Amino acid sequence: EAWLRGRPCSVARALHAIGDRWSFRILRQSFFGAKRFEAFQQSLGIARNILSERLARLVGEGILERRRYNERPERFEYLLSPAGLALYPSFLLLMAWGDRWRMSETGPPLLIRHQRCGATVQPRLICARRKTGIVVNAVTYRMNYRYAPADERA
Amino acid sequence: EAWLRGRPCSVARALHAIGDRWSFRILRQSFFGAKRFEAFQQSLGIARNILSERLARLVGEGILERRRYNERPERFEYLLSPAGLALYPSFLLLMAWGDRWRMSETGPPLLIRHQRCGATVQPRLICARRKTGIVVNAVTYRMNYRYAPADERA
Repeated sequence: EAWLRGRPCSVARALHAIGDRWSFRILRQSFFGAKRFEAFQQSLGIARNILSERLARLVGEGILERRRYNERPERFEYLLSPAGLALYPSFLLLMAWGDRWRMSETGPPLLIRHQRCGATVQPRLICARRKTGIVVNAVTYRMNYRYAPADERA
Repeated sequence: EAWLRGRPCSVARALHAIGDRWSFRILRQSFFGAKRFEAFQQSLGIARNILSERLARLVGEGILERRRYNERPERFEYLLSPAGLALYPSFLLLMAWGDRWRMSETGPPLLIRHQRCGATVQPRLICARRKTGIVVNAVTYRMNYRYAPADERA
């Protein structure tokens, strides 16, 4: 739980929730619409025991929800929870960063289009209050907790 | 380099660039204004050899830039590169997720205020083209590369 040690930090908590590379890939497939064990397994080529373990972890983190879709035989599918869906904008923004700063020679690996207008999505972060971008040196920080730097050493 | 194996993915590339928990914390301190070795060292309580190694890694990733600020003795500081600054919106959005879905009893660990208006920043992702939010099931995906699922097994 290395991400969570040290000062309380919501970014670290989010990165911890996303987890390791397999959890991340499962979550990515969920955003693409994957729900069932076999769909995850086939699209990722992941070992079944690792997939089971990571699905259980994402359920435990409240990112996915396990739902029975068949009684006999008993079968479950994994749906994005509200918390899982709420990670989608972060994925889009990290994707935009990678598209820009880790460019492939062949262009962005994935194009995301709005269904209705057909145009490529251009993710941009704004402040909902001011409707403008947020600039790092135009803000001030206030810590909302007591913190001793020694905590971070753990 | 586990994040980078498998299908080409800009999100994975961004998470790889952010790196491990120490790189992440160094980057976070940079957003707070830290520039010098001693500032990072004291605020994080990190071992000096680990700090040196991670600073070099972030420079190698093009996230920080190393600049000499003193000749005798020779001293360097670490400034955010354009790529590093461009990660700031992703941090804000991950922070907003953690504030909402990993709530502390005492409220958000960190409050970010616009200097001019004094109001708390409310990060929100929009499509710059349509000026509206981006909804996961209102988009279509097009892969811009050739990909065999077996790649992902690595």
